[in-house]
Amino acid sequence: MDAQWAGVSEPARLAGDGEGIGPDELALAARNHGLPLEALRYDLTPPGLHYTLVHYDIPATDPDTWRLTVGGLVGTPLSLSLAGLRALPAVTHRVTLECAGNGRALLTPRPVSQPWLTEGVGTADWTGVPLRLVLAMARTAPEAVEAVFTGADHGVERGVEQDYRRSLPLRVAVDPAREVIVAYEMNGAPLPPQHGHPLRLVVPGWYGMAHVKWLREVTLTATPFTGYQQAVAYRIRRDPDDPGEPVTTIAPRALLVPPGFPDFMSRTRVVRPGPVRLEGRAWSGGAPVARVEVSADDGASWTPAALAPAGGHPWAWRHFTALWYAAPGAYTLAVRATDADGTAQPLEQPWNRGGFAANPVQRIRVHCLPAPPPAQGPHDVV
Amino acid sequence: MDAQWAGVSEPARLAGDGEGIGPDELALAARNHGLPLEALRYDLTPPGLHYTLVHYDIPATDPDTWRLTVGGLVGTPLSLSLAGLRALPAVTHRVTLECAGNGRALLTPRPVSQPWLTEGVGTADWTGVPLRLVLAMARTAPEAVEAVFTGADHGVERGVEQDYRRSLPLRVAVDPAREVIVAYEMNGAPLPPQHGHPLRLVVPGWYGMAHVKWLREVTLTATPFTGYQQAVAYRIRRDPDDPGEPVTTIAPRALLVPPGFPDFMSRTRVVRPGPVRLEGRAWSGGAPVARVEVSADDGASWTPAALAPAGGHPWAWRHFTALWYAAPGAYTLAVRATDADGTAQPLEQPWNRGGFAANPVQRIRVHCLPAPPPAQGPHDVV
Repeated sequence: MDAQWAGVSEPARLAGDGEGIGPDELALAARNHGLPLEALRYDLTPPGLHYTLVHYDIPATDPDTWRLTVGGLVGTPLSLSLAGLRALPAVTHRVTLECAGNGRALLTPRPVSQPWLTEGVGTADWTGVPLRLVLAMARTAPEAVEAVFTGADHGVERGVEQDYRRSLPLRVAVDPAREVIVAYEMNGAPLPPQHGHPLRLVVPGWYGMAHVKWLREVTLTATPFTGYQQAVAYRIRRDPDDPGEPVTTIAPRALLVPPGFPDFMSRTRVVRPGPVRLEGRAWSGGAPVARVEVSADDGASWTPAALAPAGGHPWAWRHFTALWYAAPGAYTLAVRATDADGTAQPLEQPWNRGGFAANPVQRIRVHCLPAPPPAQGPHDVV
Repeated sequence: MDAQWAGVSEPARLAGDGEGIGPDELALAARNHGLPLEALRYDLTPPGLHYTLVHYDIPATDPDTWRLTVGGLVGTPLSLSLAGLRALPAVTHRVTLECAGNGRALLTPRPVSQPWLTEGVGTADWTGVPLRLVLAMARTAPEAVEAVFTGADHGVERGVEQDYRRSLPLRVAVDPAREVIVAYEMNGAPLPPQHGHPLRLVVPGWYGMAHVKWLREVTLTATPFTGYQQAVAYRIRRDPDDPGEPVTTIAPRALLVPPGFPDFMSRTRVVRPGPVRLEGRAWSGGAPVARVEVSADDGASWTPAALAPAGGHPWAWRHFTALWYAAPGAYTLAVRATDADGTAQPLEQPWNRGGFAANPVQRIRVHCLPAPPPAQGPHDVV
């Protein structure tokens, strides 16, 4: 690493045995934010509740002067204004977006980075121009194999100064089945600043790192991109020298709306005896979700949940419900999704050094009180 | 504490010497979120960037059936629908809202709770009905001394099961100078779920705990409210047996937009030699901000910043700018506000057990590189 970055930008590291979350991880957790799990009740996540992860700063952007350039191995280089993009045919897709690092803070040892538990997710309707239409206008050269996307956010990461930049294989970029879009609206309104205003990429079914925000440049290349976010970060590897496998599509996951009510500090859930309706959402970026099961004994036994149909939204999460009869005592509820290929969420998560694509079954501590609430009792009353 | 809460809802505690942020604090930090400091560039904070702190769960609310009841010591008990409230005269106030626990995670020892650094703040235009108008309609009895406000969020906290509930002295509740409002719009749109949809209290100049969200009930009482959030939480005390002083209005604070660009992990800022424009926001809930100063040597010397006028928004933050000539090296920038009563932010924060109203000067690590960026160099390029 270049000496100029000493003390500023350090190599990746793993937390030590029993090491609590440090000030650097806390600073990231305080900036970025997850979906409060009760917000799984909404089909469409309101923008302020949708997860957001910003590598550097949210850039100051001006929609009136913004340009998206398309260059490199193209026959017709483009420089598109927002008005120009809005004049092209638009599509809207409902997409569940999840951070590739979701689940990282549950790993042991913990990779030191944004410390997600399970809440790095959200679902929105994204409107924009199909990327394959933009690339067709630019007349992609036959020798192009990748499209490289550059965002306007600038920073240094592990000693590499960079604008955030990621690529897609051209076959993914132009796949009509997955339909990547250059999006300018979220839930029918201009993109909020933290979601890429005025333009971002949306890659249905892929983890969030592919959905480049504040998109300003697309470059067609004859060789695979080897920049930091492609070749160094976002690889599944067990040791630093392993080139690893790239992080791509979202692994299956189901999350419950935590039932009952919480304790403020422990977040333990409290219910009273009787039937408890459970509900949640399940999604997968590869094969569709085929089955969701819930457990009231920490995974020792499982009961099928009722899974709602995809309803014309193949890249969005699906609602599920189940009924649990609670009796007094302490429980660990669990939920797991299985996709159409038979891949189920693991009870114990295989470890990787970056903490990517970690999708262990969600576990929720629930305490069922011995009796219904008293008419007069230990409540806090006026 | 009632035995039924053992292992679910535990007493407040302080972090041990060197104890990192624990899983419980992380769960709160992942749910709640602060203002990414670069968003101080916006006069009005977009809803998804405004800080939010939810004690329990965001409740599911239905605006069509919502009622605000006004009872207790009143001549005419009320049950107001949202349409009924919208038919009353409305006011809009621009208000800077800050969490009473902002700064908590900077304290030693650290009170274990929502671990804010400095980002628990935001500014919005709130529209609604003046509370004094609602209370006049209900004909407050002469013996009433407080108004108690009940929200719809339900949980248990330190062994007390409760709906979130806070009071205001009647003289504050009806003060035309501070004009408390029953708000139904934020920045011209219905309140987002996490900001109290469909109704919340807005108490200009007071810390966030007073701005009761999901407001469903106002009760006029002849004696001061002694519920959990008033008499146990939100007190400035040095030991558990001290009754303490109540947390009320917002202490002065100034925050800089961190200059340059960040390192992803350390959040250290990087600038290049030459003039660096600094900007930020300053606010106070008591006497108005009179002066903002910046320091490039961690508070050893201070330079006045140019403070913009209040512009008709006495309860909103004010913009300030300053110019700093950066030379290669490492710096700690600092900024402090002083109010019209002469109260300045402390360099070293007096400690209190709840971690409330902590407003030490903001410190930002900045690394000035030795030279301008090379035309070709260590950047991450296509």
